[in-house]
Amino acid sequence: MEALVLEEAHRITLRDIALPQVVGPRDVKIRIHTVGICGSDVHYFQHGSIGPFVVNEPMVLGHEASGTVVEVGAEVSNLKPGDRVCMEPGVPDADSRATREGMYNLDPAVRFWATPPIHGCLTPFVVHPAAFTFKLPDTVSFAEGAIVEPLSIGLQAAKKAAIKPGDVAVVIGAGTIGMMTTLAALAGGCSRVIVCDLVPEKLALIGDTPGVTTVDVRSHKALDVVAELTGGWGANIVFEATGSTKAFENITDLLCPGGCLVLVGMPPKKVEMDIVAIQCKEIRIESVFRYANIFPRAIQLIASGRIDVKPFISRSFSFKDGVNAFDEASRGLASDVKVQIVLEETA
Amino acid sequence: MEALVLEEAHRITLRDIALPQVVGPRDVKIRIHTVGICGSDVHYFQHGSIGPFVVNEPMVLGHEASGTVVEVGAEVSNLKPGDRVCMEPGVPDADSRATREGMYNLDPAVRFWATPPIHGCLTPFVVHPAAFTFKLPDTVSFAEGAIVEPLSIGLQAAKKAAIKPGDVAVVIGAGTIGMMTTLAALAGGCSRVIVCDLVPEKLALIGDTPGVTTVDVRSHKALDVVAELTGGWGANIVFEATGSTKAFENITDLLCPGGCLVLVGMPPKKVEMDIVAIQCKEIRIESVFRYANIFPRAIQLIASGRIDVKPFISRSFSFKDGVNAFDEASRGLASDVKVQIVLEETA
Amino acid sequence: MEALVLEEAHRITLRDIALPQVVGPRDVKIRIHTVGICGSDVHYFQHGSIGPFVVNEPMVLGHEASGTVVEVGAEVSNLKPGDRVCMEPGVPDADSRATREGMYNLDPAVRFWATPPIHGCLTPFVVHPAAFTFKLPDTVSFAEGAIVEPLSIGLQAAKKAAIKPGDVAVVIGAGTIGMMTTLAALAGGCSRVIVCDLVPEKLALIGDTPGVTTVDVRSHKALDVVAELTGGWGANIVFEATGSTKAFENITDLLCPGGCLVLVGMPPKKVEMDIVAIQCKEIRIESVFRYANIFPRAIQLIASGRIDVKPFISRSFSFKDGVNAFDEASRGLASDVKVQIVLEETA
Amino acid sequence: MEALVLEEAHRITLRDIALPQVVGPRDVKIRIHTVGICGSDVHYFQHGSIGPFVVNEPMVLGHEASGTVVEVGAEVSNLKPGDRVCMEPGVPDADSRATREGMYNLDPAVRFWATPPIHGCLTPFVVHPAAFTFKLPDTVSFAEGAIVEPLSIGLQAAKKAAIKPGDVAVVIGAGTIGMMTTLAALAGGCSRVIVCDLVPEKLALIGDTPGVTTVDVRSHKALDVVAELTGGWGANIVFEATGSTKAFENITDLLCPGGCLVLVGMPPKKVEMDIVAIQCKEIRIESVFRYANIFPRAIQLIASGRIDVKPFISRSFSFKDGVNAFDEASRGLASDVKVQIVLEETA
Repeated sequence: MEALVLEEAHRITLRDIALPQVVGPRDVKIRIHTVGICGSDVHYFQHGSIGPFVVNEPMVLGHEASGTVVEVGAEVSNLKPGDRVCMEPGVPDADSRATREGMYNLDPAVRFWATPPIHGCLTPFVVHPAAFTFKLPDTVSFAEGAIVEPLSIGLQAAKKAAIKPGDVAVVIGAGTIGMMTTLAALAGGCSRVIVCDLVPEKLALIGDTPGVTTVDVRSHKALDVVAELTGGWGANIVFEATGSTKAFENITDLLCPGGCLVLVGMPPKKVEMDIVAIQCKEIRIESVFRYANIFPRAIQLIASGRIDVKPFISRSFSFKDGVNAFDEASRGLASDVKVQIVLEETA
Repeated sequence: MEALVLEEAHRITLRDIALPQVVGPRDVKIRIHTVGICGSDVHYFQHGSIGPFVVNEPMVLGHEASGTVVEVGAEVSNLKPGDRVCMEPGVPDADSRATREGMYNLDPAVRFWATPPIHGCLTPFVVHPAAFTFKLPDTVSFAEGAIVEPLSIGLQAAKKAAIKPGDVAVVIGAGTIGMMTTLAALAGGCSRVIVCDLVPEKLALIGDTPGVTTVDVRSHKALDVVAELTGGWGANIVFEATGSTKAFENITDLLCPGGCLVLVGMPPKKVEMDIVAIQCKEIRIESVFRYANIFPRAIQLIASGRIDVKPFISRSFSFKDGVNAFDEASRGLASDVKVQIVLEETA
Repeated sequence: MEALVLEEAHRITLRDIALPQVVGPRDVKIRIHTVGICGSDVHYFQHGSIGPFVVNEPMVLGHEASGTVVEVGAEVSNLKPGDRVCMEPGVPDADSRATREGMYNLDPAVRFWATPPIHGCLTPFVVHPAAFTFKLPDTVSFAEGAIVEPLSIGLQAAKKAAIKPGDVAVVIGAGTIGMMTTLAALAGGCSRVIVCDLVPEKLALIGDTPGVTTVDVRSHKALDVVAELTGGWGANIVFEATGSTKAFENITDLLCPGGCLVLVGMPPKKVEMDIVAIQCKEIRIESVFRYANIFPRAIQLIASGRIDVKPFISRSFSFKDGVNAFDEASRGLASDVKVQIVLEETA
Repeated sequence: MEALVLEEAHRITLRDIALPQVVGPRDVKIRIHTVGICGSDVHYFQHGSIGPFVVNEPMVLGHEASGTVVEVGAEVSNLKPGDRVCMEPGVPDADSRATREGMYNLDPAVRFWATPPIHGCLTPFVVHPAAFTFKLPDTVSFAEGAIVEPLSIGLQAAKKAAIKPGDVAVVIGAGTIGMMTTLAALAGGCSRVIVCDLVPEKLALIGDTPGVTTVDVRSHKALDVVAELTGGWGANIVFEATGSTKAFENITDLLCPGGCLVLVGMPPKKVEMDIVAIQCKEIRIESVFRYANIFPRAIQLIASGRIDVKPFISRSFSFKDGVNAFDEASRGLASDVKVQIVLEETA
């Protein structure tokens, strides 16, 4: 099977590689249509590892995918050939304690696409469990289907926040995940989201979303904007979506009494926290690791029009131009939010 | 002070009546601009009572109000003359147990406008506690300010539901409260709200809201629509907003496992419930009595554009035409959602 | 394999019956030690059916069991032969949506012991998934292990109630499930549980538990006791554990503002509910269907001594005396809470 | 009025001082019986300040008090002279936003006994709002009534944890607050609490409580004990009750997936947190600042016998020996948990 293979750091090739194609009784086989390039794909490309996950063997990249079912296992009843679908890239052990408790994302046995040593989905056909394959309504395009995965991280953050209708939120960081979190926070009940970044192009793009107020932190203080928009009370929720240790300085000042801080960004090292400042407002801190039971919600929100992801799909490349796509994604242009690779040539 | 006074059932007059005008240290005095007519006002007009609340003495009507602060008490710091405001009509005992626990709406000592024997606000000036008077942003009109009260009931229902982002909800009943609940459910995180009623004009009006699917229950089954839109899983939430005993028949069939039924409508008599059907899906039932800590949320949602109430403000009458306004509101036209009375003549 | 078989209503025999004994890779084989007789077993014995579940073929009874692992499948790592265990009798489809969401008890595909057409465990050896088999600490006896199942229903009710430390609860009904719910409510955070029944022996037995106040409803009003013990505020939680429609009359009077009603008992027909009375206190209603993720909690609570189930294990019979055990259990003696059958003869 | 007055750091005198004695319409006047010495009292005595709170003027110490009502204001109906009571030492502004939302402990306007410049209650008579004065049942002694305050901190922590029945918790630190948190966690639903400290006397004292397992961290690893008692899954909750930065090292290792860390201790400086470790288990962090709506719960738990605080009341001194009491409390004997001063001489 042809695939975009990360041979080692800095080297991707489009070549044949042996991949399992046996369709088990509860599996489906999918012709891949579109795959988004994630920051983690780029990170493996540039560094060959993320934390403890090291690319020791060639690995197929890609985990944000949509496509069409071409074959279903004997016990599959919820899907049929021809169904347009997107896929949840992490598959847990169905019998683990974490899975039984509804937190399958926290199961240590999860097999996640394009996380060493598991191959990803940048290849024309994949086999996947039907339970983690979700039908797309006719009104949701393949491109939208392939952005369900990063949107799901934002929605997991919004779910964890337990937003009450009308909450005011701050999102620190207007990267792809920050933008998806912003969309999720608004769709999830916030009246207003204050997005902070220092890249004008990013702020301009997310600033077009109704309900968003942007703060260019090079020239303005988030605290001032929060104070003005909340009458001095503070934001109900702060989503930290940069992973920068600097973002944590005085972060609790942004919050109202009883507010919630959601940890979305992953700082590369330990972060100093002012515990007493947290306690004086009895702040609750929630944290996010991927998502669980979110894909159907993300699809519904796109299908109903409550979330419009189209402005955030920046560019697409053909499969045979896939190596170039990674080079482009690696440049980190301010105008790029999501770069996608289209595998299936639509007639 | 001139006021719209319900003298007894079926008889409203516009006349002078003695009303307290002393501004205490934590009170504000407000020139009333707009007052919405609520179903309860109409009910007192038509019947002279609601349940145990009986109009034994002439009572000023009205509790959905906006206006302008004209005077503030000595200890008031959050408001000043000239501020445009709307008012929460129920004032609890600040020292009661329910209030201390954050459920001030459940305090039996609440004094609520236009609930016998408490006078309402259909009069040019009222005195009210600053703590229950909320500043309107410049972008929120007096008409919108006066609809914050019924919207708050919808938002209390949405808050109680504990919506998770992307939930699918059903609202049974497209009366004013059903419509406000629909807006609140969408703003509060639902991907889609299925609104059921049998009045085509009502369905047409609410059906224009993005994310709403309407069901004319004379010709279609809500259950079929829910099944189709949720892939057979069921709705996450059902808001019962009719108070009709008929609406409760098989109501749990609409819900998914672990779903939530929110009791908004108030049935005039006891309702038969199928407890085993509730248990088999482990359904949670929440109930709503007015609202607590919701007004600031409602104002934020209108101000940010996340909720647009303007299509639901149907007609307005002048104060001197107030008796006629009640006659009109009592006709219950299918095209009327919210009828308002404008007291202040804007230059 | 020898087993206690319900041939048809009113007729149980101890005889050989073919039962599957193949140990799959994630299964364990267990030598059964003790099996409790549940009200549902007795009901099938007396009536041949429960609601839609009809005994059309001979069926092995029993689903409250403890025993010893004698064989483990190739992939089982958490258990080994010789481990003393108890078993969760319902096994869901691991791939269902309800299971993935952590509500596997609500999966329609659950296979539950001794629920037609699934055989129960009143037989010397059973094969069961390791994921639903739980190791007993040395300090927990087989008799206690076999009562984990009914205790788990009480704990599911306590979990659903979301008890806050110090809550006062009422349990209506001192049957086996009422008693288990009482133990669970106290262990789960209640300061005091007021247990209401009309059988003095039942009240005397549960009344010995510290924190329990009993009310003989033939001579006293629950409402008076609640008022006295809560200073007129009302109980935080009411667990309805009779399934009697009469218990629902004025049931909300027992609750404080914002209180919670938990539906544990299963009324045979529809029940009239006063919706407005529920709303005036914004009562939350929770419902219980078996349990999910509770067995490890029940075992921990018994092992740590926080729950003492021993007083509630009334009598035991040998396996060969099993038919007699059912006759005795069917008499419904006031002094019987839990009757058990001991299969394994301890040396 | 005679009082124990902190004149400045290191100097307490028992002397007359002018204190307000006017009983407002919603106040009660109380003859103080017993007052516990809190770590904060000792800290003010030794250092003259806590963080931003500086003793610039002589200040009466003491905020953990019980006594007898001797006079009630005109509007007080829930208390009468002769009632034995304990008092919540912090009184918020009843009209603040935090108070209306049920978080009155977070109101910046709270006036809290013995927090500069507010006088405490180590004086024979105090005037206090009836709403923050709670009747003691006959079975609760004055000594127990005076320990309700520190117990309430533990119960606030337990409430914030949202314990599910059977949870396993770790309490780091066996100081007074650690012990109160341990009692609260058990009463609040935990099956078992693993208490970690390095003072054998403290561990021995708390170790007598059923459900407690102690870990002397000088010789054993908490992680090993947690692993053994939870079958490798991890604790559901960790209460950090030392305020030591060292306690935060690898603290998430103690927790299970989805577990909760409760911040009770107040570290004197910022603490390094491993955000990624928190995220990988999606840990929730809750924080505690005093308590709200907890006193009635604490009293109920003591009255019903679910919490026994008597072993933790170490020694008592007479009022005239009060200076000596502070000297003794300042020694920090390993055998002292709570030292109290008895003002009223019982006949």
